[in-house]
Amino acid sequence: MPVKIEIIAVGDELLRGYYTENNSTYISRMLGSAGIDINRISVVPDEAEAIADALAEAMSRSGMVIVTGGLGPTIDDVTREAAITALGGGVEMREDILETIERRYEAYGRKVPKGYERHMAVPSGAIVLANNVGAAPGLKVERDGKMLYLLPGVPAEMKAMFTSSVLPDLTRLGAGRTLILRTCGLSESEIEERLRGVLDEAQFKSLSIISSVAGVDCYLGPGLWDDGTHQAVDRELGSFLYAAGDLKAEEICVKLLTGTGRTLATAESVTGGFLASRITGVPGASGVFIEGFITYGNEAKIERLGVSRKSLESRGAVSEEVCVQMAEGARERTGSDFVLSTTGIAGPGGATEAKPVGYCFIGLATAEGSYCTNVMLGGGRDTVRGRVASIAIDLLRLELKGHSERLDPMRVGRDDGRLGS
Amino acid sequence: MPVKIEIIAVGDELLRGYYTENNSTYISRMLGSAGIDINRISVVPDEAEAIADALAEAMSRSGMVIVTGGLGPTIDDVTREAAITALGGGVEMREDILETIERRYEAYGRKVPKGYERHMAVPSGAIVLANNVGAAPGLKVERDGKMLYLLPGVPAEMKAMFTSSVLPDLTRLGAGRTLILRTCGLSESEIEERLRGVLDEAQFKSLSIISSVAGVDCYLGPGLWDDGTHQAVDRELGSFLYAAGDLKAEEICVKLLTGTGRTLATAESVTGGFLASRITGVPGASGVFIEGFITYGNEAKIERLGVSRKSLESRGAVSEEVCVQMAEGARERTGSDFVLSTTGIAGPGGATEAKPVGYCFIGLATAEGSYCTNVMLGGGRDTVRGRVASIAIDLLRLELKGHSERLDPMRVGRDDGRLGS
Repeated sequence: MPVKIEIIAVGDELLRGYYTENNSTYISRMLGSAGIDINRISVVPDEAEAIADALAEAMSRSGMVIVTGGLGPTIDDVTREAAITALGGGVEMREDILETIERRYEAYGRKVPKGYERHMAVPSGAIVLANNVGAAPGLKVERDGKMLYLLPGVPAEMKAMFTSSVLPDLTRLGAGRTLILRTCGLSESEIEERLRGVLDEAQFKSLSIISSVAGVDCYLGPGLWDDGTHQAVDRELGSFLYAAGDLKAEEICVKLLTGTGRTLATAESVTGGFLASRITGVPGASGVFIEGFITYGNEAKIERLGVSRKSLESRGAVSEEVCVQMAEGARERTGSDFVLSTTGIAGPGGATEAKPVGYCFIGLATAEGSYCTNVMLGGGRDTVRGRVASIAIDLLRLELKGHSERLDPMRVGRDDGRLGS
Repeated sequence: MPVKIEIIAVGDELLRGYYTENNSTYISRMLGSAGIDINRISVVPDEAEAIADALAEAMSRSGMVIVTGGLGPTIDDVTREAAITALGGGVEMREDILETIERRYEAYGRKVPKGYERHMAVPSGAIVLANNVGAAPGLKVERDGKMLYLLPGVPAEMKAMFTSSVLPDLTRLGAGRTLILRTCGLSESEIEERLRGVLDEAQFKSLSIISSVAGVDCYLGPGLWDDGTHQAVDRELGSFLYAAGDLKAEEICVKLLTGTGRTLATAESVTGGFLASRITGVPGASGVFIEGFITYGNEAKIERLGVSRKSLESRGAVSEEVCVQMAEGARERTGSDFVLSTTGIAGPGGATEAKPVGYCFIGLATAEGSYCTNVMLGGGRDTVRGRVASIAIDLLRLELKGHSERLDPMRVGRDDGRLGS
């Protein structure tokens, strides 16, 4: 039976909802991909009693407890004191801790603030974990075969210490990796339907299917899949599967473009820069991304991209005709191999009966012709913008991967006999 | 003494770190701004025993417990059963629940899936909370003067039910609102220094100062401030304070532009569309945002914005000269009242000794001249892009608010005697 692991995040600010508690997300993700499941996450305030209670409960339930936060020098940092209480009160004075902190401050030419003297008092038998990013050290204590880790709350310090001092202790517990399957273009129930036939009962029970603006992700529990399953799942999901692993679709596109020396530009209306921002967020994007146009108004569409005024007047800015003209106009002007274009109604304003909020077009211009797809999306402004960007990136992926069976129905001018060509 | 409130979020996927648990963030934020602090947040797996244990502990500690998730029709949804156990086992069969679910499915012309029959069994004495967004109803139970709420895990369903059925019960507990102060341009310690003089001990102790890419936010505890404090804080933070309340800087800019009938365009390099995306994310932005240029490559800067090839060669793309030419070129071409421009090194590649990762320029062109500021930012690619966008938006705010004392030192050509004009 695998050891149970809990996380306790300490901090008043985490209980007020203004900041998302991301330290436990980071730790559980790191452990999750090593095949280790977290048993419970608790968020508690900066109060010694609340922390000590949570710690004692966690130690009684689980074999390993990781605490983040409350190790700093100020009066509200009481995690160390709470740990001493929860572990039975034994204290040890470690002068080397203060010496290390003093050396760190001296290196910056500053004097150590008073509060750090408290750092010398640690639970007896504790091992000091070096902090290479900040001042406060971490601690590791073993009691009755159970492990307790105290880590700083500052994310950069926590991550560095977790990677260097905790992860090596934990990875040997792993049961294997979780299989992550990222899809775009299928609904949750369509995926469930397709996978039901190829997974056995235990696998199917471990399956988590979760939607986001990027698409639908599936998680298959650690130790529950092999190469055979992997191949069967690949077959069932086909071109809808864009990644088996922790990759973003835009990362895949940038890599494919880089590998073949081709270039990309964008011509956005409804996404207002969000599509380009997703792509330029990938390190190395500057090697393939040439330029983006955010033609929000009609005049910009005409001036910058050569969209015809007649099309804007007769079909409207949210139409296949304008979407394709945007992509083709940008391609002509930039010389990019590919251009993605978007137009639509993000809401809350701008909707009509014929073109409600969520009504959008996504286009792709290539040297061999253009593609366009029309979608009707639910959700608010952020969701519509996010999903349009995801569909655009997926359109490019389908082109780069040569999935013509998916692209052909979107080919512009398919009525002129090119359908299925 | 205020009632203690806990949140329990149920779901295996929340313990694997692939999805950030946002339901408890939402609830604690809603309660936090009503002056109610959360006592503890727990995240537990889809296991009846783990849920029942967490529930019993929470009910013994706190006066009010809100559970999200595990109310659906599938076999892993066991929150209702766990609640029955934790509350002592009493069950009541409520056929009206199934009837409501049946009517909902019938309205969509579909048959109710089998799993929903289990929904009829509820803890005795439970009040059914209507779900106007999805199928699974919520439940509300009182036991020994303590309240338990069971809400769905799907965020849209949870939020709708929380707002309609939980919040009205809770707001009467509030001690007032938390004061949120949003700043840009000061460090955490500079803010602490400025506020130390105007806050009393209780206020200062309740103060949370937290950085994000948008700037530094301060939270002053509920019931701990009055109009006098508010004015003193306003005075101390001056033009660095951009909002007292839950507003984004880009929302303030769009509102100020809308109110005065002026327009904005962007010319981005390092932010790659993220700046425009922040602005166009604001509902109604299309009324003031004309157009954006994402001139990632040098040729695009020359072709689209008229940046001089000589400046690019002698000063480089990351220079004040090019940044200002980008803004002014875009202003000339679009006729916008204002243009924001960005150029810099986001990393991880592209750095040189003279221009390391984080070295960036932000420009603003107006009818009365241009401004430019040079910053050196820490953090990785996302942080650099995010902070540059925030500084750009703040530059526009300073202009729209007429803070010339802050803008003058950034005026381009200030060496020609215009300094301090």
